[in-house]
Amino acid sequence: MMYSKIPLAQTLVSLCIAKGINHIVISPGSRNAPLTLSFSQHPKIHAYSIVDERCAAFFALGMAQQLCKPVAVICTSGSAVLNYYPAIAEAYYSNVPVVVISADRPEYLIDVGDGQTIRQKHIFKNHINYEANLKQDITHKSTILSETHQLSKDMEQKLQEKVQTYNEQEINAALNTAVEKNGPVHINAPFDEPLYGMQETASVFPKVQPLVLEEEIDHEKISNAANIWSASTRKMVLVGTLPPHTISRNYLELLANDPSVLVFTETTSNLRDDAFFNAIDQMILPIEKNEALLDEFQPEVLLTLGGMIVSKKVKAILRKRQPKHHWHIHENRVFDTFFCLEHFFKMNPNHFFEAFFSQTKPIESSYKAFWNAIKEDRQGKHAQYLKQIDFTDLKAFETILTSLPNSLTLHLGNSSTVRYAQLFEIDASIELFCNRGTSGIDGSTSTAIGTSVVAEKQTMLISGDLSFFYDSNALWNNYIPKNFRIIIVNNNGGGIFRILPGNKNTVNFDTYFETIHEHTAKQLAEMYHFEYQTASDVISLQDVLKTFYDESEQPKILEVFTPRITNDGILIDYFKFFNEN
Amino acid sequence: MMYSKIPLAQTLVSLCIAKGINHIVISPGSRNAPLTLSFSQHPKIHAYSIVDERCAAFFALGMAQQLCKPVAVICTSGSAVLNYYPAIAEAYYSNVPVVVISADRPEYLIDVGDGQTIRQKHIFKNHINYEANLKQDITHKSTILSETHQLSKDMEQKLQEKVQTYNEQEINAALNTAVEKNGPVHINAPFDEPLYGMQETASVFPKVQPLVLEEEIDHEKISNAANIWSASTRKMVLVGTLPPHTISRNYLELLANDPSVLVFTETTSNLRDDAFFNAIDQMILPIEKNEALLDEFQPEVLLTLGGMIVSKKVKAILRKRQPKHHWHIHENRVFDTFFCLEHFFKMNPNHFFEAFFSQTKPIESSYKAFWNAIKEDRQGKHAQYLKQIDFTDLKAFETILTSLPNSLTLHLGNSSTVRYAQLFEIDASIELFCNRGTSGIDGSTSTAIGTSVVAEKQTMLISGDLSFFYDSNALWNNYIPKNFRIIIVNNNGGGIFRILPGNKNTVNFDTYFETIHEHTAKQLAEMYHFEYQTASDVISLQDVLKTFYDESEQPKILEVFTPRITNDGILIDYFKFFNEN
Repeated sequence: MMYSKIPLAQTLVSLCIAKGINHIVISPGSRNAPLTLSFSQHPKIHAYSIVDERCAAFFALGMAQQLCKPVAVICTSGSAVLNYYPAIAEAYYSNVPVVVISADRPEYLIDVGDGQTIRQKHIFKNHINYEANLKQDITHKSTILSETHQLSKDMEQKLQEKVQTYNEQEINAALNTAVEKNGPVHINAPFDEPLYGMQETASVFPKVQPLVLEEEIDHEKISNAANIWSASTRKMVLVGTLPPHTISRNYLELLANDPSVLVFTETTSNLRDDAFFNAIDQMILPIEKNEALLDEFQPEVLLTLGGMIVSKKVKAILRKRQPKHHWHIHENRVFDTFFCLEHFFKMNPNHFFEAFFSQTKPIESSYKAFWNAIKEDRQGKHAQYLKQIDFTDLKAFETILTSLPNSLTLHLGNSSTVRYAQLFEIDASIELFCNRGTSGIDGSTSTAIGTSVVAEKQTMLISGDLSFFYDSNALWNNYIPKNFRIIIVNNNGGGIFRILPGNKNTVNFDTYFETIHEHTAKQLAEMYHFEYQTASDVISLQDVLKTFYDESEQPKILEVFTPRITNDGILIDYFKFFNEN
Repeated sequence: MMYSKIPLAQTLVSLCIAKGINHIVISPGSRNAPLTLSFSQHPKIHAYSIVDERCAAFFALGMAQQLCKPVAVICTSGSAVLNYYPAIAEAYYSNVPVVVISADRPEYLIDVGDGQTIRQKHIFKNHINYEANLKQDITHKSTILSETHQLSKDMEQKLQEKVQTYNEQEINAALNTAVEKNGPVHINAPFDEPLYGMQETASVFPKVQPLVLEEEIDHEKISNAANIWSASTRKMVLVGTLPPHTISRNYLELLANDPSVLVFTETTSNLRDDAFFNAIDQMILPIEKNEALLDEFQPEVLLTLGGMIVSKKVKAILRKRQPKHHWHIHENRVFDTFFCLEHFFKMNPNHFFEAFFSQTKPIESSYKAFWNAIKEDRQGKHAQYLKQIDFTDLKAFETILTSLPNSLTLHLGNSSTVRYAQLFEIDASIELFCNRGTSGIDGSTSTAIGTSVVAEKQTMLISGDLSFFYDSNALWNNYIPKNFRIIIVNNNGGGIFRILPGNKNTVNFDTYFETIHEHTAKQLAEMYHFEYQTASDVISLQDVLKTFYDESEQPKILEVFTPRITNDGILIDYFKFFNEN
């Protein structure tokens, strides 16, 4: 084992290891050399080198999401750390513990005209759970300072002890918060030169402050809720983004078998089940102007689980048809999505259900039966419509989604991709992820690659073309497993804009909204050693998919070309079809 | 002319036009539709569509730097705006007026679980000259709100007038500050749905607040400085980054002809002149351990002009050998780079020199003659060394830099590129730029392309390979002129790390510091329709360069391959050569 000569670097490494962090994504630089040298040679650390910090942070996010524990990203001083920001905001809103460790110049070298120097403190202030702004070691400083600021050895030692105590406390607090709040934290670490010195023994032995996770259970609030629940014949459970296996099977069955409960699960909920309503938009888009059906839809009690809701329509409808009671259950975070939140149960959902279901009673209701009939009708019409349409985005998604092998980890890009996927039943065995925290198109490929590196199952990304090209640097990555797969649905631009209002098929629309282009992934595939295949109709797509998931010598990209001009019409008609037929 | 139905969108467009902004870089999105529709169809606006916001902002920076006036970037809500941050920090430290206009959701839709929504206010707080956090129009709101918050028409009108006044004032202040401080400002504009409505007449007529630029001249301080200057035999002028044609020729001649003045100009100063010392590192690196020569070097008076100083050595030496008097002249910004700043003359340097030189007197001195002799010796040895070395980075830079046609706008990448360039005399006719504000490797190609779009002359970028691949999305740009040129010096990784301390040629070093790779720009050139040429020795390089700058049907990339392993040794020996021969 080798240790940096800089006490702060040793302290950081030691506490990260103690807190169980063992995946570190490093971007090259000199100011971070004390950390790079220490972490990359540490026997307990898997270190990854990624040059583009924007990709590095999303890559770390993908890993942390799979591992369900913090992953650290380390960069040099200056603008490097700013490139982390898109992923940090995503991690913040989707509850993924990414630990940013930014090397910094010491305070006296900031804003004096040195290169690669910015004001790094508080950079992520709006979207971070903890900021540890560490202090430079008194005993490790460059000759510039030591000549002008001479301290007695004794005084220096005393000051150093104070700095050491402060740094240990702040690092402990940051790393504990990452787990407690299940989100990103920022540790800013100033290092003075020389940066590269290493030694064979440790010189500091930082104290580890244990993480104490306490959950307060408000039994009275739960009892009251259970009473309201028991008395209501119209209850809805709406599940947003959730990691796989979050909710115990027995509670799901209780919900599935209750005639007074509709369970709406989003694609990203990882709770898809035949007894639930899994294709939300298919259910509700056709009724948005039907006041009678909206009356039938409006719940008395709405219980929400998980993170962000993808479906805009369910948000819009429930904002207009508000439930009498809205309760949200989450370990960390609540949003008043429907402007009528009554209770936030800040707790593990299984703990909530344990206490809750021990007090609820069954009630007769036709709520579920009514909507089940509609669901069956929708499913029939869905199949009927899909049979008759030309090859377009919608048909491509059907073909792809029915080809998925069980046991796949599937990452979906924003925003067309995840919206199309919401229209289909996806096998419950498939673990599904999508960056819905900020719903950006900016880092899906990097995130999926991070996922692929640590996921036990084969990982595949489905992405739109704009999102794929946006994050093309994601492929500049030496850790991509051979069985990683990307399917790009290339409709030559931002097809989603065709579905929104505005004048289509004008030069203005093509340029500034749809942003049409003629690029393909062919050259990127060649550059980054992916096998590259294409399809542009059902037959060729099915043909490629037959062997697409098989073992291979290289990871693969399949680029599916769909007709830009007709995609939106086919989708719009899909929703009309439910009412007209 | 078409106008958005949203008063805030009209106000923004109207004031931007009034303030002379006519270059707007738009990234696709829906929330920013009111601005996209208004700006892109406006007869006075050149609009550009760039998908990747990181590139878009650097592209705008390149344009604003050339035009010497504000250029705006416009994006949708959510993580989009975060991708601007690297360029905004660069603009902040290198004094370039980039105006960020981020569309936002209205306040009541933030942190309620809507997609593409973050906390956009104060995002750039650390590196911005003004933040205008605008208010949503009272009279334009979605049905969600209007049903729950009914106001009387009269009250609504009164509140709207207040909002309108506030918004006008804030936009005026932001746009005026961009010019006054010559740097980035952020305007955050919340828009509620519907977003796409347009009308044929304007409904608001915003007041334009004029920009008043005042310069205070402290005559007494200038007189005192002139007296000190006149009495000193050892004066140094050190010029960092400066736009071309900043300093009047007559003042430069006064400096050039003064025997008591050494003028050190950096490559990025655009003040290169035979009478000055233009290759700073060539002059001072060989003396850094020679105490006698350092004594001879130390100035009594140091006058600094311009922005950041590239040369680490001149900073290190002047920090140890501080001048008695350090004065900085700049219109906006001062850094105490040498920890001994005495005066900051916050004024246009020409105005300073006008007042200053009217009061200075000549003095006899051998200061310049002494260093001129050394300079001649250095130049001889430089030529001698360059003749005898193998093809490496250093030789490649010599070959490239001697090939440059006069009248070229040259953009240099960070960080090897600009450092190598500092060792050569570059023709004074060449206008030269480099992102030295934060010295990041992250946006050089996008900046250079922004430059190329508005520069009158042919524009070329010289870049290292890591920097080029980092910003590969820069090429995803429909506005690149045919005569734009890129030369990539590809040494298979971050060659600069080989020059820094640390153990070279270990797996650890290769992976986490030098970050070696085997990629080339071939596929990117093909994808983005660049002509692609390569060279790997002097003969092939000279051969390509013969016709490289000529008119062509496509922009061109020349990739120069240099030997990774020997580059650093040749450079280190270069500096030794001056002392040993």
